[in-house]
Amino acid sequence: MNDTVIAVDLGGTNLRMAVVDREGSVLYRSKRNTRGDAGGEAFIEEISEAARECLARVTETRVGAMGIAVPATVDFAAGIPKNSPNLPVLNGLNIPRILSERLGLKIILDNDATAAAVGEHWLGATQGTGNSICVTLGTGVGGGLILYGKPYRGIDGTAGEIGHIGVEKDGHPCGCGSRGCVEQYASATAIVRLAREMRSKHPKSCLASKKNLSAADLYEAGSKSDELALEVFSIMGSYLGMALADLVNVLNPETIVIGGGVAGAWDLFIGATLDQIRRRSFPVPAERVKLMRAKLGDDAGILGVARLAFSVLA
Amino acid sequence: MNDTVIAVDLGGTNLRMAVVDREGSVLYRSKRNTRGDAGGEAFIEEISEAARECLARVTETRVGAMGIAVPATVDFAAGIPKNSPNLPVLNGLNIPRILSERLGLKIILDNDATAAAVGEHWLGATQGTGNSICVTLGTGVGGGLILYGKPYRGIDGTAGEIGHIGVEKDGHPCGCGSRGCVEQYASATAIVRLAREMRSKHPKSCLASKKNLSAADLYEAGSKSDELALEVFSIMGSYLGMALADLVNVLNPETIVIGGGVAGAWDLFIGATLDQIRRRSFPVPAERVKLMRAKLGDDAGILGVARLAFSVLA
Repeated sequence: MNDTVIAVDLGGTNLRMAVVDREGSVLYRSKRNTRGDAGGEAFIEEISEAARECLARVTETRVGAMGIAVPATVDFAAGIPKNSPNLPVLNGLNIPRILSERLGLKIILDNDATAAAVGEHWLGATQGTGNSICVTLGTGVGGGLILYGKPYRGIDGTAGEIGHIGVEKDGHPCGCGSRGCVEQYASATAIVRLAREMRSKHPKSCLASKKNLSAADLYEAGSKSDELALEVFSIMGSYLGMALADLVNVLNPETIVIGGGVAGAWDLFIGATLDQIRRRSFPVPAERVKLMRAKLGDDAGILGVARLAFSVLA
Repeated sequence: MNDTVIAVDLGGTNLRMAVVDREGSVLYRSKRNTRGDAGGEAFIEEISEAARECLARVTETRVGAMGIAVPATVDFAAGIPKNSPNLPVLNGLNIPRILSERLGLKIILDNDATAAAVGEHWLGATQGTGNSICVTLGTGVGGGLILYGKPYRGIDGTAGEIGHIGVEKDGHPCGCGSRGCVEQYASATAIVRLAREMRSKHPKSCLASKKNLSAADLYEAGSKSDELALEVFSIMGSYLGMALADLVNVLNPETIVIGGGVAGAWDLFIGATLDQIRRRSFPVPAERVKLMRAKLGDDAGILGVARLAFSVLA
C-alpha cells in the first residue's frame, strides 16, 4: 500500500483538500467554502468532514498524516495559528490537537506562503536550488524563503514577510500598520488603487470610466496596450523590483519565483522589475538571480504542505 | 601542544594579525600598514613577513591554518577575492594558493563582515543564537548573517549587503551604483554629509562653522546635547531602523548586533532606530528582536576568521 497524506489549503474563501502521494501526484481532490464565520467548532467540523470524504475515497492507500497550510503565522512550539487577518477563526485554535483526536492522523500546520515555497522547491520552478525566494502577488504580497534547501521561518515562524519591505518611506498606509510597504504597490488590490489614482491622467484609456475596476480588467486592458494599464504595471513592476533588489543584496538567491494572480501579467511588469534589480543590486548577485514564474499555480501550497506532512512520517 | 591559527584582518589601511587558540584567546598580535598600492607581490610579502613574525613567537603551539578576513566578496569556488573597492590589489589575487606555498599552512579567506558576524556569534553578543544579523557602521555599512547557527553567504558569497537596502527611493547616490541605500544615511561618511547639509538650520550649533567635520566631532557634540548633532543622529537612527525593519519582517532574527565606530553613539541614535522597527515591523518579530551593541570591537573579524580557520583543521 502506498503512503499518502492529506494536504489542505485553508484560504479566506475556499478550503481545498487533496490526497497526495510521495511523488506529489494528487489522487483525490475536494473543495468547499470556508465556513470561517460560523465559529471554531463548525470550522473544524467542515475540515473533518472533508477529510473523511478523502479518506473514504482512497482506501487503497495508507494515509499517514495531514498537512494544513494556513493564511497565518504558526506558533510552532504550540502548533497554533496566530495573526490571521483574513481568517480570524484560526487565531489561537489548536487545530492539530483537535483534528488529530477526531481523525487519528498526525497533523502539521504551516504558513501558506512557506508551503508554496516548499511546493515550488519540491516539484516546481525552484527544484534543485539551494537558496530561493517565492513571492506571491495576490490580494496581498506573500513570501516564503528556502535557504540551505529548506524552509526558513525565523525564530517565531514569522519570516518571509516580503510584502512588507518598505519601498516608499512615507507611502500608502498598509494593513500591517506601516506605510509604503511593497504590498501597497504590487498586489492585486494595489494595482486597482493605482489605476484609480491615475485615471484622470489617461482620459482615453478604456478603463477611464469603468466601474468596479478589477485587477483582471487591468490585465486585459494592458494586453491590448491600454496606456493607463501599461503605466500601472510599469509602476507596479518597479516597486516590486525595489523590494527584490534589497533581497538580492541581502540574500544573494539563485532564484526568485513569482506566483499569484498578478503574476499572470508577467510580460507587462517584469521588464520594470528587472530594470530596478539591475540598477539597485550589486552586479554579481543581480546577474546571478533568475526571476521565474511559479509553475504549480494554486497547487503550490497544497503540494508544499503535503511534502511537509511526509516529513513527519517515519 | 596547543592547536592555534593565524587570523588576519586586512583593512584598507591596516593589516592586523593574531595567533588565536581554540578558546579564542589571542596569544600574539601584530599590526602594520597595509601596502595595498605597492602591487600584489609586495602586498603578499608583507602578509608573509607578518606571518613569519607570528610563527617565530608562538613556537610552543602548533599553527595549523591561517584565516584572512578581506574587505571584498570571496569567490569560494576559486578562493579569490572580488569586488574590493577599498583594497583593489586584492581583486583576483589568489592569496590562498600563493600564501600556502610560502607558509606551508592551509589558508582560508572570508568576507570581513561575515567574519565579524562569526566572531560575535562565537565569543560576543550573539553567542547561542540561531539567527542573528551583524551590522557594522563604519566608513560604509557592512553586514553579516548567521542563519541556522552558521554564516549565510548566498550562492556567490555576496549575501549580507545590509548597507545597500534602499531606504529613500530617489535618495543620495551610493558608491554601489544605486541611490538611497541605508549606507548613505547611517555610515560615518553619511552622518558627516548630513551634518554639513543641515548646518544652516542650526546656526547656534558648536559645529556650525567647524572645518574638517568628522563623525567623532558629531559624537562629541551630541554627547553635549548639541542640537545639530542630536538631529543628525536621530535621522541616522531612523534610516537605520527602516532598513532593520525590513530585515525583521523578512528574517525574524533573534538578535541584531551593531558594531563599528558609529555604534559608539548608541545612546544618540538607538531610540529612533527602535521606534522605526516598532512602527514598520510586524508585532511578533519586532517584540522578539534584541538590538545589542557588538562586544568584540575591532577583534570581531579577527576572532571570526580564526574560528573559520579552525573549521578546516581536522
